[in-house]
Amino acid sequence: MEKELKIAVLGGGSWATAIVKMLCENMEEVGWYMRSVYAIEHIKRNDHNPSYLSSVEFDPSKLKLSSNINEIVEYADVCIFAIPSAFLHSELEPLTISFEGKMVVSAIKGIVPETGLIVGEHFSQNYNIDLDDIGVITGPCHAEEVALERLSYLTVACANQEMADRLASYFESDYINCKTSDDIIGTEYAAVLKNIYAIAAGIAHGLGYGDNFQSVLMSNAIREMKRYIKKVHKMKRNINDSAYLGDLLVTGYSVFSRNRLFGNMLGKGYTVRSAQLEMSMVAEGYYATKSAYKINQEHGAKTPILNAVYDILYENKNPKKTFKKLAEKLD
Amino acid sequence: MEKELKIAVLGGGSWATAIVKMLCENMEEVGWYMRSVYAIEHIKRNDHNPSYLSSVEFDPSKLKLSSNINEIVEYADVCIFAIPSAFLHSELEPLTISFEGKMVVSAIKGIVPETGLIVGEHFSQNYNIDLDDIGVITGPCHAEEVALERLSYLTVACANQEMADRLASYFESDYINCKTSDDIIGTEYAAVLKNIYAIAAGIAHGLGYGDNFQSVLMSNAIREMKRYIKKVHKMKRNINDSAYLGDLLVTGYSVFSRNRLFGNMLGKGYTVRSAQLEMSMVAEGYYATKSAYKINQEHGAKTPILNAVYDILYENKNPKKTFKKLAEKLD
Repeated sequence: MEKELKIAVLGGGSWATAIVKMLCENMEEVGWYMRSVYAIEHIKRNDHNPSYLSSVEFDPSKLKLSSNINEIVEYADVCIFAIPSAFLHSELEPLTISFEGKMVVSAIKGIVPETGLIVGEHFSQNYNIDLDDIGVITGPCHAEEVALERLSYLTVACANQEMADRLASYFESDYINCKTSDDIIGTEYAAVLKNIYAIAAGIAHGLGYGDNFQSVLMSNAIREMKRYIKKVHKMKRNINDSAYLGDLLVTGYSVFSRNRLFGNMLGKGYTVRSAQLEMSMVAEGYYATKSAYKINQEHGAKTPILNAVYDILYENKNPKKTFKKLAEKLD
Repeated sequence: MEKELKIAVLGGGSWATAIVKMLCENMEEVGWYMRSVYAIEHIKRNDHNPSYLSSVEFDPSKLKLSSNINEIVEYADVCIFAIPSAFLHSELEPLTISFEGKMVVSAIKGIVPETGLIVGEHFSQNYNIDLDDIGVITGPCHAEEVALERLSYLTVACANQEMADRLASYFESDYINCKTSDDIIGTEYAAVLKNIYAIAAGIAHGLGYGDNFQSVLMSNAIREMKRYIKKVHKMKRNINDSAYLGDLLVTGYSVFSRNRLFGNMLGKGYTVRSAQLEMSMVAEGYYATKSAYKINQEHGAKTPILNAVYDILYENKNPKKTFKKLAEKLD
C-alpha cells in the first residue's frame, strides 16, 4: 500500500472528465478509458474532451488514454466507473481481465437495469469482488462546478477505512474537500434515490407547484430516503450528511438536472415516451425508479414519493391527479 | 371552546396579509390591526392592501380593521402577531388591554432585540402569559405563494394539542395543508435560525461559491440547527420535518429572501452598514444573529455557520477569509 496507486477512470462523460481533472491535481498519471476513439484523439491533440466540460484543459502526457477497456483495467489498481448505469452492462461485455486484487469504485448514480442492483452490488455479485474491495464516490457535486474549480465536497465510501482515506487523499485539492464513510450501500442508494426525487421535483414544477411545495417535497424526500435506506441496509448513519441530504439538494434544486427536466416535461403534459425522445437521452432516474420500486416491494418502506413517480412513469397514471393525492400524504 | 373563536391578526406586511387571507377562507370575521390608517382606508375602499400582496382581494365586510391595537386585542380570543420583531416592542407600547384568557400566537420569525428572546418567550415573560396559551405558526411558506393560492404547508405549534388542532382547522383550505406540533420553542428557534443560514447562503453566493457548496452549507446548517435547538430545548423532534428543514430550504434557496439578499451584498463587498442602507430595511436575520449567538454562548452548541455570520456582521471580519475558514469546518 506504500507505492502510489494506479487509478483509472472509466467513462467519457462530464462526471468522468471531472474525476480525471481532480485526480490530475495529485497524480503523475491517470488511466482513462472511453469508448470514443475520436474523443481520445481530440484530447491528445487539443488537451480537452470535445464533448464534455470542454473548458477543462488536460496535460495529455499525464493521461494513459485508451478505448480498450482491458488495457485500462489491467493497468489500474483502482478502477473508477463513471459510465451511465444503462450502458454499464454493454460496456463491460468486452472485458476479459479479472478484477482480482483491484479495487472497483462506483461513481455512477444509478441502478444497473439488467440486474436491478446498485453498481457496487452489481460488481460484487457479477464479478466476484469482495465488498471490501468496492468503493463509492458520491457528491453533492455538479461536474460543471468542478470544471470551474468551485469549492465542492465529495464523500468516498469504502468498508476499509484506510483505503477510503487513501483514495480521498487523491481527490483533495484547493477546490475539493473529500470526506470518508463506511456506508458503501447507503451512499449509493442515496445517489440513486435522489434522481427519483429530482424527477418528482420536476413534475411538481411542471404542474405549477411553487417553492413552498418544493421545500416540503424535499423535506419529505429526505425522510423517505432515510426509511428506504434503513430497510435496505440498517446501520448508524446521519441522513443529513452531505452525501445524502446534500446530494439530494444539489440535484433536487438544480435547474440543470436531466432528471428534474424530464419530470418537468411530464408535469407539463408530455408523455414519458415523448419526453424521452425530446431529451434524446434517458434520465438515470427513469430506470432507477423501476428498480428502486421493485426493491422496496420486498422491504415495504413507506415511500409515497417514489410510488407516485413510479405510477406516472410505469403505470401511465395522470401526473396531476397523482400529485394531488401525493400532496395529501406529505406533511 | 365550542363557539367560533375570534381571531385577530396584528401586522400590515405581506405575511400578515397572507394570514388574513387564509383565515378569511374559513371565518365569518377576522380582526386585523395595522398601524397605517391609510392602508386601512385603502383596504376598505379598494379591497386590497396597498403595499403588500396587493393582488389579494378581500371582502372588507368580513374584516374588523383597526389601527387601535387595544381595540383589536380586546376583540380577539386569539391574537396572531405578524409584526417584524424589530418593531414589536414599540408597537406594543400603547397596549393597555391584558392578554388574560387569550391566546397569543407568534407568526414572527425573529428575536425581539430589546429582550433577546424569541417571540413566544417574550410574550410569556413580559406579559405574564402561560406557555399553554402561546402558539407559533410557521412555514415553509412564502406569503407571495399564498397570494397565488399555490399549495403550501403550515405548522401550528401549541403545548395544548386540542388548541393546535382547532387553530389548524382555521388555516386548512384547498391550498393550505396545516399540521400541528407541540414544539413551541423549537419551531420558533428554527424560524429564527433559518434566517441566519439564509444570510450565510447569500454571503457564499456573493463570494462566488456555487450550488455544490450551497448544498453542503444547507446540509451542515440543518445539523447545526438540530444541535442548537437541542441545547435550548431538548425534546423528541424530527429536524427534517417541514417546520424545520422545509423552512430552512424555502428561505435558504429563495432568491427573494431579504436575508439572503443582505448576505449576498456582504459577500459582494458591501459593508454591513451600506448593505442595510441600500436595502432600506433591516433583514430580520441581522438582529437574530446577535441574539442567537449570545444565547448559544450559554449553551455551547457547535455552531460554525452562526459564528461565521456573527463575525462578519458584528466583528467586522472579512467575509472571504471567514468563509474560507468556515468551509474547512464543513463536511
